[in-house]
Amino acid sequence: MLYFGSRNNKNVYARIGGFLCILLANSTSVNAANTPVTSADKPHNIIYLIGDGMGSPHTTAYRYYKANAQGKVRGDKSKIPSTEFDKHLVGMASTYPADDTLVTDSAAGATALATGFKSYNGAIGVTPDQQSQLTLLERAKQLGMATGVVATAQINHATPASFIAHIDHRKKYDEIADQYISSTSNSVLNDTIVTDVMLGGGTKYFDRESRKLVKEFKQQGFQYIDSMSDLDSLKKLPVLGLFSEEGMPFAIDSEQPNRLTAMSKAALRLVENAPKGFFLMLEGSQVDWCSHGNDIACAMAEMTDFEATLKLAVDFAKQNGNTTVVVTADHSTGGLTLGRDGKYVWQAELVHKIKISSGHFASLVKEGQSVKDVWEKYIDLPLEKDELEKLVKASESEKQYALSNAISKLTAKKTGTGWTTGGHTGEDVQVFAFGPHKDMFVGFQDNTDIAKKLFSLLPKK
Amino acid sequence: MLYFGSRNNKNVYARIGGFLCILLANSTSVNAANTPVTSADKPHNIIYLIGDGMGSPHTTAYRYYKANAQGKVRGDKSKIPSTEFDKHLVGMASTYPADDTLVTDSAAGATALATGFKSYNGAIGVTPDQQSQLTLLERAKQLGMATGVVATAQINHATPASFIAHIDHRKKYDEIADQYISSTSNSVLNDTIVTDVMLGGGTKYFDRESRKLVKEFKQQGFQYIDSMSDLDSLKKLPVLGLFSEEGMPFAIDSEQPNRLTAMSKAALRLVENAPKGFFLMLEGSQVDWCSHGNDIACAMAEMTDFEATLKLAVDFAKQNGNTTVVVTADHSTGGLTLGRDGKYVWQAELVHKIKISSGHFASLVKEGQSVKDVWEKYIDLPLEKDELEKLVKASESEKQYALSNAISKLTAKKTGTGWTTGGHTGEDVQVFAFGPHKDMFVGFQDNTDIAKKLFSLLPKK
Repeated sequence: MLYFGSRNNKNVYARIGGFLCILLANSTSVNAANTPVTSADKPHNIIYLIGDGMGSPHTTAYRYYKANAQGKVRGDKSKIPSTEFDKHLVGMASTYPADDTLVTDSAAGATALATGFKSYNGAIGVTPDQQSQLTLLERAKQLGMATGVVATAQINHATPASFIAHIDHRKKYDEIADQYISSTSNSVLNDTIVTDVMLGGGTKYFDRESRKLVKEFKQQGFQYIDSMSDLDSLKKLPVLGLFSEEGMPFAIDSEQPNRLTAMSKAALRLVENAPKGFFLMLEGSQVDWCSHGNDIACAMAEMTDFEATLKLAVDFAKQNGNTTVVVTADHSTGGLTLGRDGKYVWQAELVHKIKISSGHFASLVKEGQSVKDVWEKYIDLPLEKDELEKLVKASESEKQYALSNAISKLTAKKTGTGWTTGGHTGEDVQVFAFGPHKDMFVGFQDNTDIAKKLFSLLPKK
Repeated sequence: MLYFGSRNNKNVYARIGGFLCILLANSTSVNAANTPVTSADKPHNIIYLIGDGMGSPHTTAYRYYKANAQGKVRGDKSKIPSTEFDKHLVGMASTYPADDTLVTDSAAGATALATGFKSYNGAIGVTPDQQSQLTLLERAKQLGMATGVVATAQINHATPASFIAHIDHRKKYDEIADQYISSTSNSVLNDTIVTDVMLGGGTKYFDRESRKLVKEFKQQGFQYIDSMSDLDSLKKLPVLGLFSEEGMPFAIDSEQPNRLTAMSKAALRLVENAPKGFFLMLEGSQVDWCSHGNDIACAMAEMTDFEATLKLAVDFAKQNGNTTVVVTADHSTGGLTLGRDGKYVWQAELVHKIKISSGHFASLVKEGQSVKDVWEKYIDLPLEKDELEKLVKASESEKQYALSNAISKLTAKKTGTGWTTGGHTGEDVQVFAFGPHKDMFVGFQDNTDIAKKLFSLLPKK
């Protein structure tokens, strides 16, 4: 169980070699002005941002939501400012899994983005035949680069897990957490801690009755923190920071809404001087969760944190000059549309009137507050008598999420927001890139191609 | 009333000059490999394709629909072929109108794409202050290029109209048609027929009681045809071809489903040797109409015709070497999503089992056929007893579209297709390009930017 150990794997190298050949044969060598080329005298870094559930409609909605911040009135729309997403859009990607559904979950989606291989919904870092596939993060570790994952979900949730673990199903949270410290049967890199910095949620899994992983990480030389206010105290790798039992609170409900940005800033500071460069995966985990709840205000608050994280990454890359930033989503969640029911309007400015997630609203009611009081305190939109009655009725239902769903349904209607599902949808997602080699990502590609291109950007030995 | 006349308009030239300065200052000069640069010794052509209502979800859905053609079974999705859209994707565009809705109609959308100016929903070639703005097609005509529009809607419908006419509202179909032969009060180019080839629907407006425009066009030297089988008889410009009273039949219901492709082929043949090059606008008009009806099989059949038209344009551009092809949509229609109601599946192969539009289904029932008979003849999907009862009930409703809507609702459910509206939605649309200067369209842009870039590609005098 060696912290900096690494094990050569012939099959894996053969696979990587195959990738490179395919890429060299097919690459469209576009030389964009203003795109610096990697300097041989500096290590090359990769920052990979994944907006979980961030479909193309989410970035459009966010542009108009942002333009309407601070209660700015609607009116002349001739100069709606571009977001960080707009500035760096380069292409789109298909997301279908290996199974026959055409609609991916986050596990198959992240496995494709981490390994370059399609798999079935639920798969973590393994192909349908249960073969573990080397991930970008593991490959970076083999090459001596510093590695890290940051997420607002528990750090052993599907997306980060697909970069670190190899297991047949995403729901095996304990086993996934175990693999973060010492992979057992299924890892490509046995007996190696592959991740130098891990920040997010998950004490429930890392400090559980049956295994005290936090203690084990400390024994392996990791600094451990459990408070966001200690982020500044982190001085060197390796680091584990867990700030909530499972996922962190939604940005919209949080005292520190830009928590992904704050964690990512700390992670960047820790890896920026790594002698052989670094690979960081930063996940905006809860765009997905809010969208599962069809909760537009919640989703837009997550997008705000994710955009700030993207800006942080791009600003770092601008200064550093040798860092490639790639952003995408694993899939779109909720079937979001701007406008619904035949009406040609999306009321971005009304979304700003909602200062609570539907889920937290329901929790407060469960704790004894009245629906009316919570609405009036957190949602500055008129509530008709029949609407209130419906919400109260939902609050009395024994069905889980009845009130939360009823609130989302009502705010969706009031803001003109369309949703078709509480699950995922199969539309292509966007790809954004900045820095050297960004033109490699221009145009249409499959999600597995994004991983293959990034593998080709890692050092060759 | 001169066919090849042209009138210099100082304000218009000043505006174009402004565009060019902005473009020269801001252009990102990306030099892509394999992108030929316009040769000075050959006239430069522009083919502008607009998929009306073709949101990004439509092109994803079409990829999977196409892959599942010929009843191909689902299974290994690791090699889903790219469509023509995939091959030429370069960016995305925002579509919001000048008014405060964020959701555009086809008139404001096409006005932006034709002139580079935002306007209000309903506007045809005019800004909110009712100023006529020079269109790309008019500018091409001023420069002596051959010009044309092809549509499966009536040719005086919002999209083609925004390239030729200038009027306060899209519903003024007669006045718009009148402007096609001699603009009256509102045109930028008075007393000029600006379009050399017009192919599509619209005899209701061009051969109406109050004005016989077809006759007038003939008097102005136009060859007129009213049968698709006469397309091959067309030997020289100018040409008017009208093949239906209003819009042409849906591709799915048509004996000649690739009618946009056929008309576009004829138009290309007529303009290809124009001494000063040509500007053609080819509209896949009815992706929008099918999507307004939330009719997925209808929309996919339109996409098939539109993709074939794109291939035709790209093949021409490949051979010609001096033709830029740009494709986009004015907006997305229907709020289409792949997957719905919490289920992670879109059943592309079931869409192929539907061989009739919901509208034509309803017409056949209105003419006396039974719901059950029509279903069994055209839709190879099981119909449960309660489903049949609902359809029969809808067929007895006095509400317009009751049966048509009920059929769309049922096929959407059976195929896992989500829709949020019978109208438009505000998400960004895709931009596709091929040929010289295609890199100008890479990344995010506004719909008005597409027009501005195309203006900059027209000859300078």
